[in-house]
Amino acid sequence: MERLPGFRDFYPEPLPHSDVWSADARHYLFETWRAAARHYGFREYDGPPLEPLEMYTMKSGAEIVGQLYNFTDKGDRAVSLRPELTPSLARMVAAHERNYKKPIKWFGLPQLFRYERQQKGRLREHFQFNADILGEADLGADAEMLALAIDALRAFGLTADDFVLRLSSRQAWHDFFHQRHPDSTREYEFYQIIDKLEREAPEESSHKLAALGFSYDEIRAFINAGEPTPELQSIVQNLAARGLAAFVKVDYGVIRGLAYYTGTVFEAFDKKGEFRAIAGGGRYDNLVKLISGGKVDLPALGFGMGDVVLLELLKARKLLPAFGANVDVYCLIEDEALRLESLRLIQHLRAAGLAVEYSFTPLKPDKQFKRALELRAKHTAKVDRSGAAPAVRVKDLRSREEKLVAWDDAVKTLAGEGG
Amino acid sequence: MERLPGFRDFYPEPLPHSDVWSADARHYLFETWRAAARHYGFREYDGPPLEPLEMYTMKSGAEIVGQLYNFTDKGDRAVSLRPELTPSLARMVAAHERNYKKPIKWFGLPQLFRYERQQKGRLREHFQFNADILGEADLGADAEMLALAIDALRAFGLTADDFVLRLSSRQAWHDFFHQRHPDSTREYEFYQIIDKLEREAPEESSHKLAALGFSYDEIRAFINAGEPTPELQSIVQNLAARGLAAFVKVDYGVIRGLAYYTGTVFEAFDKKGEFRAIAGGGRYDNLVKLISGGKVDLPALGFGMGDVVLLELLKARKLLPAFGANVDVYCLIEDEALRLESLRLIQHLRAAGLAVEYSFTPLKPDKQFKRALELRAKHTAKVDRSGAAPAVRVKDLRSREEKLVAWDDAVKTLAGEGG
Repeated sequence: MERLPGFRDFYPEPLPHSDVWSADARHYLFETWRAAARHYGFREYDGPPLEPLEMYTMKSGAEIVGQLYNFTDKGDRAVSLRPELTPSLARMVAAHERNYKKPIKWFGLPQLFRYERQQKGRLREHFQFNADILGEADLGADAEMLALAIDALRAFGLTADDFVLRLSSRQAWHDFFHQRHPDSTREYEFYQIIDKLEREAPEESSHKLAALGFSYDEIRAFINAGEPTPELQSIVQNLAARGLAAFVKVDYGVIRGLAYYTGTVFEAFDKKGEFRAIAGGGRYDNLVKLISGGKVDLPALGFGMGDVVLLELLKARKLLPAFGANVDVYCLIEDEALRLESLRLIQHLRAAGLAVEYSFTPLKPDKQFKRALELRAKHTAKVDRSGAAPAVRVKDLRSREEKLVAWDDAVKTLAGEGG
Repeated sequence: MERLPGFRDFYPEPLPHSDVWSADARHYLFETWRAAARHYGFREYDGPPLEPLEMYTMKSGAEIVGQLYNFTDKGDRAVSLRPELTPSLARMVAAHERNYKKPIKWFGLPQLFRYERQQKGRLREHFQFNADILGEADLGADAEMLALAIDALRAFGLTADDFVLRLSSRQAWHDFFHQRHPDSTREYEFYQIIDKLEREAPEESSHKLAALGFSYDEIRAFINAGEPTPELQSIVQNLAARGLAAFVKVDYGVIRGLAYYTGTVFEAFDKKGEFRAIAGGGRYDNLVKLISGGKVDLPALGFGMGDVVLLELLKARKLLPAFGANVDVYCLIEDEALRLESLRLIQHLRAAGLAVEYSFTPLKPDKQFKRALELRAKHTAKVDRSGAAPAVRVKDLRSREEKLVAWDDAVKTLAGEGG
């Protein structure tokens, strides 16, 4: 029985194969993202992994269905495994908007899904750190968003040598388009061409641009000039005040594929250009109104940062910590007559917050000690009945130093040393 | 746009309505479960939320499909959102069994799904703490499993006054059946009747039992006698050595509905009998072999503990902590000329691990202070340029004590006090 193509199993480390995913690394990513979000005052939320299909088609058009993991449920509803969290966020905020002070700063860690028939071998799910600010039109919110994306990456040990945020503006491109083209209905088509510019052959882009009445050269010239708008200047100045100037550069080569962005857009890339985008986002001031059917109208912006590219980058830069069983104490039971008393000790140590392992069955002392070493336990502990009162023989497995401590001092000794 | 029936949104606290679910409470449950599992040396794993339908039908028969959230995917595969994690665990262990020392002690925190047409208003998803031990036939593993279930509940502040584990044995019921009935093919049918005994009218159970040649009274007598098997005695003795005797009682009224249990079975209930089972599990020594197509044969046992009943119980017993924004510092920007320098301070404090909030836009000082109080921030901090060097004016919002500290002392003052 095999798992479905495009899905991942997450195993405890050490991993059985290099192509197998790590549950420990996933938890490390999640808790690092959570901590970064918490420092910025963001609160956690989540929606359902399954939503009405219409929630995605109303936002992105019917053509999105070809990329969705959608199906008809037993109640004949058209539904989809979520491809992104933002529509759920807009729905949730619209439903209980008055309960929360603006600006709303929320984050989520959803698993997201897609299903493209032609994409064999590609993942059909991934996890994403999503952060959004709703109810704030001021550019200070755009800067805050970028600062969080930067600090969420720095929290893994990545530096300005490793990554950069390419900052752009849908507004700048909007103005560019409208100064040269009369037909608003072609605007999104134009953005799609710009979005593919770096990944497509120049001849192909050139051909498509010509059909809209643009020359490839004028587009290149606009991107290369990179003249920041006053809005982008303000954001860069804000980030500079935080000491984050080295992490951002204005770059109109970025425009983002999704239709709903309205202002600032950005993508984070590794500086060596080895990987796909690490993160991306921007301002989407009209989406909440659209999703809520006009009920609630809030300016908004956010970003997503996926687990797959980030893990590849952290591995390549050797920034992933070593994960393991994190056993604090291996309890040796060398005399089966002491098993029940050993269980009492194990319970005592675990209740104090220590991670304790032992053998369920009788095992030769040298095998138990070998297992303690394999597990990289910090200490071994053993009930000692040689004195009047039961005591504990403790061994530090790094220093190999051994001592006998009173029962009531065992926790202090085992938690305090070599932690 | 509404969410699908039976699915939940998770909001940050304070919650907009009492019937809305809390993302903060969910995270609290998850991290408490994780810590309990870690103390017992269990390692985290996860499988995909979507699996081949056959994985569940091969284990539970085709009749299970009526309860599954199953569908046909775009590649014409019969698939199902997972109703439980154990089959994925068996598949994962079978695939990489040699990499992991036995016994394998793993836990997961999956979201699980079901779809029953007739059950309007019932949840179609929930989260579950799953813990399993594979590769250990010894009863010491059964006791360890129960001890973890007990300690996972105690970690929330629940005591022996709040809950009890009802411990039973499929083996005891197997022997009971075979001493009285010749036809093994009716055995699971018999278990199903016993499983429903407490929820069904006695006449109905009586009628069904009679069809199998059993009298209601002999079943009741067997349950009431509650004579523990030597296996159950050994488990109870093991738990008693850990000081956990008050949390467990032998009770043959429990048998568990699933077909695959082979030995010890148990369910945890609140002592007042107000809620459905809090947790349940048991030994399933043949399942790994079945799921792996005979490739791997490991004795195994485990339990599941859902988020819904546990949250109801914790609320009823007033054991849920108060959740909030957990803001350490609200940075006051009373002079817009100091905004950029304030951003530098905010960055400095966040980098030190403090959660810092501030207003993105100019706001009257009293409104900023009011916001700090609403957020229950521990301190306010404000850049002070009255001296030669920039300093920080810090106010403790509980004691209302205020002091001026040097920039480099700000973190120490803000992190050290009133944490």
